[in-house]
Amino acid sequence: MNTLYRYLLRLFTLATILFGAIATTNAAGAAPKRVAILLFEGVDVIDYAGPLEVFDTDGMQIFTVAATKATINPSDAMKVVPSYTFANAPQADILIVPGGQIDKVQSDPATLAWIKKQSAHATYVMSVCNGAFTLANTGLLSGLKVTTTAGRIDELRKKHPELQVVRDQRVVDNGKFIETGGLTAGIDGALHLVSLIAGDGEAHAIAQQMEYKWLPEGAYLPGTDAFHIVKEIMGIGMMSAHETGSMDGIASSSGDSTQWEIGYRLRSEKTDSDILKHVVQSYTGMALDSGGSAAVTTGVWQYRDAEGNQWNVKFNVDSVPGQTGMHVFKIEAVRV
Amino acid sequence: MNTLYRYLLRLFTLATILFGAIATTNAAGAAPKRVAILLFEGVDVIDYAGPLEVFDTDGMQIFTVAATKATINPSDAMKVVPSYTFANAPQADILIVPGGQIDKVQSDPATLAWIKKQSAHATYVMSVCNGAFTLANTGLLSGLKVTTTAGRIDELRKKHPELQVVRDQRVVDNGKFIETGGLTAGIDGALHLVSLIAGDGEAHAIAQQMEYKWLPEGAYLPGTDAFHIVKEIMGIGMMSAHETGSMDGIASSSGDSTQWEIGYRLRSEKTDSDILKHVVQSYTGMALDSGGSAAVTTGVWQYRDAEGNQWNVKFNVDSVPGQTGMHVFKIEAVRV
Repeated sequence: MNTLYRYLLRLFTLATILFGAIATTNAAGAAPKRVAILLFEGVDVIDYAGPLEVFDTDGMQIFTVAATKATINPSDAMKVVPSYTFANAPQADILIVPGGQIDKVQSDPATLAWIKKQSAHATYVMSVCNGAFTLANTGLLSGLKVTTTAGRIDELRKKHPELQVVRDQRVVDNGKFIETGGLTAGIDGALHLVSLIAGDGEAHAIAQQMEYKWLPEGAYLPGTDAFHIVKEIMGIGMMSAHETGSMDGIASSSGDSTQWEIGYRLRSEKTDSDILKHVVQSYTGMALDSGGSAAVTTGVWQYRDAEGNQWNVKFNVDSVPGQTGMHVFKIEAVRV
Repeated sequence: MNTLYRYLLRLFTLATILFGAIATTNAAGAAPKRVAILLFEGVDVIDYAGPLEVFDTDGMQIFTVAATKATINPSDAMKVVPSYTFANAPQADILIVPGGQIDKVQSDPATLAWIKKQSAHATYVMSVCNGAFTLANTGLLSGLKVTTTAGRIDELRKKHPELQVVRDQRVVDNGKFIETGGLTAGIDGALHLVSLIAGDGEAHAIAQQMEYKWLPEGAYLPGTDAFHIVKEIMGIGMMSAHETGSMDGIASSSGDSTQWEIGYRLRSEKTDSDILKHVVQSYTGMALDSGGSAAVTTGVWQYRDAEGNQWNVKFNVDSVPGQTGMHVFKIEAVRV
């Protein structure tokens, strides 16, 4: 008896025992859930690979679906062959709508029709990242709470006033329809779905197996970072500085919901003070889409965000010692 | 001028501006780094998709390589066509060796020869998860610090005494050779590589773009969880309970480095006390691979781990109210 145990323990790691067992007994007790993942040219890899890993570990039956059987090149880095087309895909219990380069897919009639058809009989439909735009275009989310990737929350609000778009939830659960924040937030969404179907314990065990720090309550919420709240003004500063030379990467990027600092490495033949002067001139008198008043003095912009909060945004340019023509252009935003 | 800025800001989200700019200017300044990802039948999806997303966001040039051009079915859930074979793959700057079902690949002569050939000229070679076993089998890691997925750290120690295997690092950096913990730890490894190549700021900006809570200093270390320290004894308990019925998933799984609780849902016609009795009998007098003494009384096992630490392991069985034949079998380990 002891020998048997030890043989089995050597044969399998505990993870294999646990998760293999779950998959097998779930399959014996009830048919495993079927998960359909929508693929399209430009689909973001982590948007679907994250949820796929979660559902696979749980022993669900996963397949990918695209308009045609043609090979998909997500993010130009990997060639993927879809399992099915819209014409022959089986009905799923869970439908995943990932994001990525959605320019075409978000308004493609065949894609929207297939999502609607699957959604009519699926138990759960989850968008990841800017897949929320595609799902919203079906009309199925009207009146519901929705989120998307941090950088596109404002855009989703403008395009879809019929939705209640939130920025302070990593996973938004409306019952049948669930949407997550961007990219790795799809992992959280899939873990949330496992917790609904198989319980919290199983979801936590899968997160542990994936060595993923899952924080269902204290989730990481990049949408609430100051970076995204003041991104319009940061974008103008960066682009204005860019006109004086060329970007050479990001020197720093850190902060929280009340302050952010971002530094760009900039190659430019101009002096630090000429670069700063150019940036300040670009802001002077500018009306912003999201509001804000036009007071720029010695590199400080008085900025009011869409919710009426006041921010001080400072600009600074420093030459990098020993690197001719290399500067760091820094933007600091502090809520006041 | 203002109109131009606003047009551009509408056209691109800030993320697109930032990361598009990084990729473009890096490419202008120096050739983008070439990343080769090894694929094989049974490769774990997140092991390579996580790093791929990081490197892609940084604007690196990524390709996949396998023994042949045959379609790969990672985890039976997705069909992937490799970019190159061992015979025609270009030399990479960064080589990624993922894990998964490595039974065959870890000792395949053609795979090991190709890894050695690429490693001779690559700047960095990184294994993810149990890809460490494959990389270790090339002999290239001899004498170096290494880690692997939490559940296989002990196994790696036994199989490769020539390595310094650690359990308290998510990313182990030996200079050229880097190894990460399991699954999502590959994301941390790739961010670490970006920080080496392009600086901390860029790595943090990519983590933010991926909405991934990156904790380079205070990293999540599942290998140090009590779950893995006492996994042998937890495995015996679980398998012993399983003999009285069938597993129906995990009811709970939580803890830290000094205690862990795991609860299994168990379908069994036996009574709670008969199940517990069976578990206790299974432990009595058992010698463990990793040490431990044989004192089990009323469901408490006195356990000594490989480092000599003492643990009290308790077993408990409770019927689930209102669900005939359903029990929760709980194992609690507390370091004393």
